[in-house]
Amino acid sequence: MQEILKPMDIEKRSFEIISQEIGSVDLNEKELLVLKRVIHTTADFDYKENLVFRNNPVEKGIEALKKGCVIVTDTNMALAGINKPSLKKGGNSAVCYIGDEDVAYAASEKGVTRAQAAVEKAAKLNEPVIFAIGNAPTALIKIDELINNGKLNPVLIIACPVGFVNVVESKELILKHNIPSITSVGRKGGSNVAAAVINAMLYQAFPR
Amino acid sequence: MQEILKPMDIEKRSFEIISQEIGSVDLNEKELLVLKRVIHTTADFDYKENLVFRNNPVEKGIEALKKGCVIVTDTNMALAGINKPSLKKGGNSAVCYIGDEDVAYAASEKGVTRAQAAVEKAAKLNEPVIFAIGNAPTALIKIDELINNGKLNPVLIIACPVGFVNVVESKELILKHNIPSITSVGRKGGSNVAAAVINAMLYQAFPR
Repeated sequence: MQEILKPMDIEKRSFEIISQEIGSVDLNEKELLVLKRVIHTTADFDYKENLVFRNNPVEKGIEALKKGCVIVTDTNMALAGINKPSLKKGGNSAVCYIGDEDVAYAASEKGVTRAQAAVEKAAKLNEPVIFAIGNAPTALIKIDELINNGKLNPVLIIACPVGFVNVVESKELILKHNIPSITSVGRKGGSNVAAAVINAMLYQAFPR
Repeated sequence: MQEILKPMDIEKRSFEIISQEIGSVDLNEKELLVLKRVIHTTADFDYKENLVFRNNPVEKGIEALKKGCVIVTDTNMALAGINKPSLKKGGNSAVCYIGDEDVAYAASEKGVTRAQAAVEKAAKLNEPVIFAIGNAPTALIKIDELINNGKLNPVLIIACPVGFVNVVESKELILKHNIPSITSVGRKGGSNVAAAVINAMLYQAFPR
């Protein structure tokens, strides 16, 4: 059997392999580190083409994390994937409202998805918000609507739902805004991708 | 903007699209449902080639879930991705030991990874165990070792770590055994994939 390496050594060697195989990429150094971590998480080099950075999102995200902000995820899985020790270093917090009783109630009352009701709840936060959406296209649709209505102004939107219905279109809505965004265009994405994007910024803001 | 569908309708339509695009697959109906859910979770049709079913794993897994068993994951992310209402229907439980203090202590004492120490802890369970490994190749290496030593006999191994170092080789170790297994051969996999495999079996065992 192959040599057993320590987790940090495995990560280092993995990034070396990714760097060797990725070829030339037209991204700045900070964005490249995000792309590499997404590939590290998925072993899928398609993200070289699929991951779109708009309005200087990684620099803005790192800046917000250094100052302190709330990361709002649309799944408990994305929440679980965020590195908690790194999160705490900067006094940041991460929340997922999808399972909250008041969100379930509001969704049922208004006839919307829980993901939409969860975005409405997040829009009431007073702190700067980074959205990390890895599952629900309806979350992006609601984010778009609230921005259009002047009711939401997030620091950064990570727009990475995965799937086959409304997913591609919901991401296009986000790309139209002047707000910093990191989008996995097309069908691919996921909670793991959203969490990886957050972690890639956390590790740059607060080196391990 | 496109029509807003309810979550269950979106899922149904997604599976219709996957069925249209997947083409012919040499799997039984139960296995095919697992493959389709993995594609639903990743939007990645590579799993049509990558997902390997050995020793009648889906039927064995469903059988175990109906009788009651413990699902052991290697990440909190995989744990978070398992559908809890479905899990409870059958009186099953899911655990992740990776963050446990006794596991951290044992790993440090023995100079092994926490993933390995977590597998050793799981090997002491008296209930039937399904392993759902989506991250750590060292977990698979430890599972292989304990099986070889007659110290572990899981009902099913979901062998889906993702990555670039030791990942491919660790999966090959699992494929050598006569134990039921579902393996994402090659580099791809992930906590989301491991959770999707579990959910696909839960939904067959306990229809929603």
